[in-house]
Amino acid sequence: MLKKVFSFFIAAVVFMVVFSNCSSKPDNKNKEPYMNETSIPAENNKVRLSMITVDSTRLDEYNTFLKEEIEASMWLEPGVLTLYAVSEKDNPNKMVILEIYADEEAYQKHIKTSHFLKYKKGTLDMVQSLELIDTTPLIPGLKIK
Amino acid sequence: MLKKVFSFFIAAVVFMVVFSNCSSKPDNKNKEPYMNETSIPAENNKVRLSMITVDSTRLDEYNTFLKEEIEASMWLEPGVLTLYAVSEKDNPNKMVILEIYADEEAYQKHIKTSHFLKYKKGTLDMVQSLELIDTTPLIPGLKIK
Repeated sequence: MLKKVFSFFIAAVVFMVVFSNCSSKPDNKNKEPYMNETSIPAENNKVRLSMITVDSTRLDEYNTFLKEEIEASMWLEPGVLTLYAVSEKDNPNKMVILEIYADEEAYQKHIKTSHFLKYKKGTLDMVQSLELIDTTPLIPGLKIK
Repeated sequence: MLKKVFSFFIAAVVFMVVFSNCSSKPDNKNKEPYMNETSIPAENNKVRLSMITVDSTRLDEYNTFLKEEIEASMWLEPGVLTLYAVSEKDNPNKMVILEIYADEEAYQKHIKTSHFLKYKKGTLDMVQSLELIDTTPLIPGLKIK
């Protein structure tokens, strides 16, 4: 009888240890910091280039606005897949942003967010030119390693 | 005595079950398909835009070359972090590639690979103009979700 109780106890411990350590613990090692994900196929992505010329006397101010807007969008909006912004080394006031949205709906949501509107209004008189170019990606769904 | 042997046996089973199921089993759920990774900090990345105009009568042929070259680079070269290529919807023969290499060394290795040289030689007479623009990323290390 004692042996049976003991066996049962050990089996219960084995069960608890295995399941508490394995099944229910998510492995975050390879996770991006961005928690939200969409199940929208990459073929539906809206991919665009924004070519922006900024008043070079206000570049630092502009970059602060843009950085805050990108970080908020990446963290808060599952449908904003990237807003990878670069400036030309030889002309730091010339910016290009590779914008990838999950789909048109995600983009329409994005331009109504408070962080986007804050950026848009805040930088209106710093932007000297803005060209929006709709594009087709050669390999939809390609990532940055 | 029997109870001690039994306890030892159970302890050994617990140990084996826990370690065979948890510690040694890698979780590939969130892995990108790209197996190689570098430990080079994002601040060292070489980030560039290639602006390419292609002979529009040979666009399909060019795209086949470019796609093969990008896929080979992403799979085989840990230091090629992305080669995200887009074409303008209104001018499909105008391409822009956002190129991110782990560092200058990774780029120098890249341009010596057989797949890059195959692309370069194969498309030489299809490329009407090529502008290479060195850039600084606003947020080094930003990804595509």
